[in-house]
Amino acid sequence: MSKTRLEAFSDGVFAIVITLLILDVRLPPGASPTAEAIRSLAPQIAAFVLSFIIVGVYWVAHHHMLHFVRQVNRQLLWLNLLLLLAVVFIPFPASLLGLQLRNPLVVRLYGLTLMATNAAGLLFWIYATGHEHLVIPELSREFAGFVRRLHGSPIAVYALAVALAGSNVWVSLTLYALVPLFFILPNPFLQRKVDALSGGG
Amino acid sequence: MSKTRLEAFSDGVFAIVITLLILDVRLPPGASPTAEAIRSLAPQIAAFVLSFIIVGVYWVAHHHMLHFVRQVNRQLLWLNLLLLLAVVFIPFPASLLGLQLRNPLVVRLYGLTLMATNAAGLLFWIYATGHEHLVIPELSREFAGFVRRLHGSPIAVYALAVALAGSNVWVSLTLYALVPLFFILPNPFLQRKVDALSGGG
Amino acid sequence: MSKTRLEAFSDGVFAIVITLLILDVRLPPGASPTAEAIRSLAPQIAAFVLSFIIVGVYWVAHHHMLHFVRQVNRQLLWLNLLLLLAVVFIPFPASLLGLQLRNPLVVRLYGLTLMATNAAGLLFWIYATGHEHLVIPELSREFAGFVRRLHGSPIAVYALAVALAGSNVWVSLTLYALVPLFFILPNPFLQRKVDALSGGG
Amino acid sequence: MSKTRLEAFSDGVFAIVITLLILDVRLPPGASPTAEAIRSLAPQIAAFVLSFIIVGVYWVAHHHMLHFVRQVNRQLLWLNLLLLLAVVFIPFPASLLGLQLRNPLVVRLYGLTLMATNAAGLLFWIYATGHEHLVIPELSREFAGFVRRLHGSPIAVYALAVALAGSNVWVSLTLYALVPLFFILPNPFLQRKVDALSGGG
Repeated sequence: MSKTRLEAFSDGVFAIVITLLILDVRLPPGASPTAEAIRSLAPQIAAFVLSFIIVGVYWVAHHHMLHFVRQVNRQLLWLNLLLLLAVVFIPFPASLLGLQLRNPLVVRLYGLTLMATNAAGLLFWIYATGHEHLVIPELSREFAGFVRRLHGSPIAVYALAVALAGSNVWVSLTLYALVPLFFILPNPFLQRKVDALSGGG
Repeated sequence: MSKTRLEAFSDGVFAIVITLLILDVRLPPGASPTAEAIRSLAPQIAAFVLSFIIVGVYWVAHHHMLHFVRQVNRQLLWLNLLLLLAVVFIPFPASLLGLQLRNPLVVRLYGLTLMATNAAGLLFWIYATGHEHLVIPELSREFAGFVRRLHGSPIAVYALAVALAGSNVWVSLTLYALVPLFFILPNPFLQRKVDALSGGG
Repeated sequence: MSKTRLEAFSDGVFAIVITLLILDVRLPPGASPTAEAIRSLAPQIAAFVLSFIIVGVYWVAHHHMLHFVRQVNRQLLWLNLLLLLAVVFIPFPASLLGLQLRNPLVVRLYGLTLMATNAAGLLFWIYATGHEHLVIPELSREFAGFVRRLHGSPIAVYALAVALAGSNVWVSLTLYALVPLFFILPNPFLQRKVDALSGGG
Repeated sequence: MSKTRLEAFSDGVFAIVITLLILDVRLPPGASPTAEAIRSLAPQIAAFVLSFIIVGVYWVAHHHMLHFVRQVNRQLLWLNLLLLLAVVFIPFPASLLGLQLRNPLVVRLYGLTLMATNAAGLLFWIYATGHEHLVIPELSREFAGFVRRLHGSPIAVYALAVALAGSNVWVSLTLYALVPLFFILPNPFLQRKVDALSGGG
């Protein structure tokens, strides 16, 4: 399996997942598009936007990791499919979140899915960087460790959000939104680290 | 993130969005395909055709803009995802429009989504052309400004349509249809401008 | 717009359309998967298989036509989108056909959609081959005419099927199935013509 | 039809099929996301994970086979579409399996679909390797035979599962899960055979 094929296939899956999310922003069958009915879709629209951004961040992270991968073996191929399995699962908890944004159970399930996705990405990275012939020689041990911590830290944040969902779902939802913002917004801390440790990514 | 990857991912999202639109042209569950039932889908078919053409124009515009982009940085990557967020949202107001073509609220929501999409595209272009190292050197300041006006003008037309939806939805719907026709039909004004300012696109 | 981008986008749309067709092979919501319920899906499965094959033939025909295209201008780009509009529409009459395979109205609508798709493809080909700079120099006038007749003939067959749907839908459905079989099955007549007129396709 | 185009189109179809599977993991319309309602989706989640992995294995197998294909003729193109037809069908029995995991009829239909998919893949491989000019010269007769047995053996396992579904569906479901695990888990037997017979794949 060439790296290019793996990337193209993964890109396709990410593009479909990110687009399918809108299918859950729909009026119930038979409902009329009144102002009230459309307003009642606010949680679905919020869940859509949050999930779109989160899947977008995973897509960007996937590219950054593959940038350092030189070749793909059987194990890495299946770890990539494990990551895609978690990503493809996201629309399900996202659909539940759209139904009841303030349901602690749903908020927890959403967080657990994100934890699983980051864990799968982490496994992919740990396996790839643990086998010298699979990554490009320019990848330093320090940078590999930095990406590992970067990809692993959200798991702790999501775990906190899952734990807090019972007492206050808004704190949990805010934590879910903060993680992608950390990666999207201009971030001097992140930039300095990346500049110090690598030539790009 | 290479420009090629960004294009391929965006193409994938555009292709999925433009195809998903047909999923809203469906009989209600349990309905029989009688002549009357099929005729009653006329608004859904109209909303499908209109939205297909509009998304098609966005896809072509996206390519024309990327033609002048030389490299993609973090900011441009996320502005592109913001544009895709707006494009992926289009099937939702399109589904409402299919339900009630003459509902002013729905006609307004449709127009607001198109305004947001053009605004996101405009942001993308303004950011790219404001950073010399991101665009190709052949791009003149005049042509960048021309594309800016070309991409921004529909916002005013859509705003007018949104404002008029309360008094006459047919005027609004006609305005929505005229914008893509302006870009699709042979257009001597547009062609002369493009020829004068650039070598293509 | 480069030809490669147009092909990749069109391929994406064809791949999504051909896959979405399976979404209409579903039990009604709340139904149990009993032997009887599954047997009652036979028309939906038949409509799925027929439409899959027909879209597959369109996909192959699209490639064969693009093989002779050298460059894509604005007009050809929009004629290609017109063709895709017709292709994206197919899942709608296909879903109706799955509901009532023997409903003359539905059988007619299905045929009209196929006629429109072939007509759009024909327009694409006539425009491309009518502008020498858009096609490869190896394309002879004779071969262009042969492809034109090949792409246009099914319109007559489908028109016959539409006309006959009122008296016997099975004749119409058989005609719909025969057209793709003519293109798929080993076909000495077709092969001899292609060999005589061109070096491939 | 170039091999690259065929691969890209097939990859698109595989990516869409594998992602669409999640659309069947949904609460019934109008249901609240209670703990009980979510727990009742366990069979749907199990059917999703099983089908995701199985489609993933087919995707990897498709690549391995195409690795040895040098050029694609009309017959091979249509055999590839026959394989895709079977793959696109999988979400239908998968949706039934999600409804009633322990229904022997559904378990049988699922297995018959997998048998058809492997049979289509086998036909593709037998046709390709039976025509010397379609495959790369490095492909030995022994390796072609090994892949044939490897791709054909699951048909026997699935047939056994279909036969046993009437007496014990869990045995059948376990057999469905074991086949992909045989291909995914590190497998010294498989590796030794591949190393002995070929330089990769």
